[in-house]
Amino acid sequence: MTAEIITIGDEILIGQTIDTNSAFIAKEFNKIGLSINRISSIMDRELDILNTLNSSIDNSDIVIVTGGLGPTNDDITKKTIVKFFDDTLVTNQVVLDNIKFIWKKYIKQPLLQVNIDQSLVPSKSHVFVNTKGSAPGLWLKKNNTIFVFLPGVPFEMKELIKNSVIPKILNEFNLPYIIHKTILTYGMGESSIAEIIKDWEKSLPNDISFAYLPSLGRVKLRLSTKGNDLQKITNNINLYTSKLIPLIEDIFVGYEEGESIEKLIANKLTSNNLTISFAESFTGGKISDTLVSVTGASSFFKGSLVCYSTASKVNNLNVDKDLIDKYSVVSKEVVESMALNVKKMFNSDYSLATTGNAGPTKGDSNKEIGTVYIGLATPEKVFSFEFNFGNSRERVTGKSVNKSLELILKELLKN
Amino acid sequence: MTAEIITIGDEILIGQTIDTNSAFIAKEFNKIGLSINRISSIMDRELDILNTLNSSIDNSDIVIVTGGLGPTNDDITKKTIVKFFDDTLVTNQVVLDNIKFIWKKYIKQPLLQVNIDQSLVPSKSHVFVNTKGSAPGLWLKKNNTIFVFLPGVPFEMKELIKNSVIPKILNEFNLPYIIHKTILTYGMGESSIAEIIKDWEKSLPNDISFAYLPSLGRVKLRLSTKGNDLQKITNNINLYTSKLIPLIEDIFVGYEEGESIEKLIANKLTSNNLTISFAESFTGGKISDTLVSVTGASSFFKGSLVCYSTASKVNNLNVDKDLIDKYSVVSKEVVESMALNVKKMFNSDYSLATTGNAGPTKGDSNKEIGTVYIGLATPEKVFSFEFNFGNSRERVTGKSVNKSLELILKELLKN
Repeated sequence: MTAEIITIGDEILIGQTIDTNSAFIAKEFNKIGLSINRISSIMDRELDILNTLNSSIDNSDIVIVTGGLGPTNDDITKKTIVKFFDDTLVTNQVVLDNIKFIWKKYIKQPLLQVNIDQSLVPSKSHVFVNTKGSAPGLWLKKNNTIFVFLPGVPFEMKELIKNSVIPKILNEFNLPYIIHKTILTYGMGESSIAEIIKDWEKSLPNDISFAYLPSLGRVKLRLSTKGNDLQKITNNINLYTSKLIPLIEDIFVGYEEGESIEKLIANKLTSNNLTISFAESFTGGKISDTLVSVTGASSFFKGSLVCYSTASKVNNLNVDKDLIDKYSVVSKEVVESMALNVKKMFNSDYSLATTGNAGPTKGDSNKEIGTVYIGLATPEKVFSFEFNFGNSRERVTGKSVNKSLELILKELLKN
Repeated sequence: MTAEIITIGDEILIGQTIDTNSAFIAKEFNKIGLSINRISSIMDRELDILNTLNSSIDNSDIVIVTGGLGPTNDDITKKTIVKFFDDTLVTNQVVLDNIKFIWKKYIKQPLLQVNIDQSLVPSKSHVFVNTKGSAPGLWLKKNNTIFVFLPGVPFEMKELIKNSVIPKILNEFNLPYIIHKTILTYGMGESSIAEIIKDWEKSLPNDISFAYLPSLGRVKLRLSTKGNDLQKITNNINLYTSKLIPLIEDIFVGYEEGESIEKLIANKLTSNNLTISFAESFTGGKISDTLVSVTGASSFFKGSLVCYSTASKVNNLNVDKDLIDKYSVVSKEVVESMALNVKKMFNSDYSLATTGNAGPTKGDSNKEIGTVYIGLATPEKVFSFEFNFGNSRERVTGKSVNKSLELILKELLKN
């Protein structure tokens, strides 16, 4: 069984919108044993849509198409479906009732004819009611290929994939299992890792594929496999993972599956009844925001001060003005004072502080652009690290957030 | 002239990585008058790569391919290129010198054979040296189609697109102009907007296309056109835009081109010498982070307190404990007190505060999940709004950030 995804929308082709729908669908499909072989993004243009749908018949068993189902004139997917399947549109009463309900309860504006027309569906389609919006999901078959059309609004698409599309696929097909195991490493480049583990990599059986994913100072290592015997493939992946870990002990921080680094930090803090706080300068709240994204953060996250300017470091965080004048605002001395003071301010067990010149121009410090200090205060001590993360503001910030999370986790793992 | 993008990498097809490269390339290409007709993501598999490259020969004049050029075994693009172009690999001395330089200056680890091998390039290719990494860009021609191969690391790809690929395209081809004008609206659904502007939409000439882009409580309206006479198409777009704005005056907040809402806020604050601060509860630093992303934020952004827990609202922001007990932590009274106190704390002219039940479970308040209060303090007064943004945590947070920015801008535009 092979699947592919087609996203329809000019906004993707002109770079106005990043296609996040495909990654979501691919992930959910992998969980049920369906591999995605191709993702295509095309324009809201009849000929492009028809050509792409036609080429999918030979390529895939299941084709998920998102986008172009809205009520406005620029959306032409439904008209095009009718041509492709040689079908006509008919009113679906359940969809119409759902639209009326949504308009009455949430939209609270007059129901227009274009909204009512959203209940028109191809007569041959199996319909999935969309409880979050007006465009229903449509399941149609041509030759031996199944086509599923879904609205492009991520919120609505996700709901339909999880609660309607996947249950129907599982009901109709017998699928294998796909397993990915991703290992998080920090602090070494991909070619150096490859050199260290080359014998291990050569020993991998054919049914396990292996990939390196480098990004902003960390490399993810991914093992993937597929098979009908879940127990067997799980054991196999675990066996080769257990042989890999000792080779990369120094750079290994954990696994990705459902366990982002922020989640690993959260687990460690929660299980040890520890709390943390942040003083963020150029990272502007990004570290806090990353940690708050973990459910239940209020039990370990005491709060943060975003102190972007030198003035707020002095006035709101009580960093000594003399210290700043003597060492500059981007310095070991200042970041350690920030970490200590924010820990006291929020009465937390741990704290982390950032200060740096993220560019594009130098701020209140003469340190080279890209210079970053990260300070960490623990119940026992305070210490800090200096980095240079280059001259791209976005990259300096991204790398600093990753490095901060890495430093916290490493510190927590010591206990 | 038509172009397409192919991204190679299993990580995209299994949903582990979101393809952000394509949006960047599409945007840059639109700026020079090149439309993207198709974006495809495929696996690191020889047959898939060869088939997709073959199908591009008929479809496109320029094909940008990213990914699969790394030094490790999972990357097979270069081997496959050699087959596709019936070519051989030769050492490129300039690329080799560049790799040696990078290793000496930045990597500071031994240069391995796999790193040296990155200087092997197809003999027929025009080579773009990658100053940020080891994989060079490659420009090759088959029949009448140009193929450009670039590393998938966003940082390296962006540099090569801007400084090497686009200059060469501009040098070899005479391209038309593409203009997009995107209007930002807040507070009305797409079908209601369509109803209000339907006569205007009908009056649009064939060479202007129009699209609605709804997302998290705002709708973007986009006019697009293409032509050889820049002055003429610019005038045409401006003419129809000026006819549209009066029809949507109540919901219009500005234009998108280079002017995100945070930039509009930054401009307004800077030009009036005003400052702002935030007290963020469930938004966790996201509003601060959005504003800090604007260059020069230190001149108007005084700082933020991320006070996620009830305790930090009391201890760090001095919100009256009795107020919380009486009205609950998610209330008009508390959010207004937060706004007033954070304004005082940072001595800013304006401030904004958030508190809410973002879900998935109720926190320290019994208010329904999705309930959000946003408070705004100006030099003269304090006021707040209550919203319900549904039951998805991610969506509640996203909508709240958007709504907060909208409220700030609206308030600033009053002066």
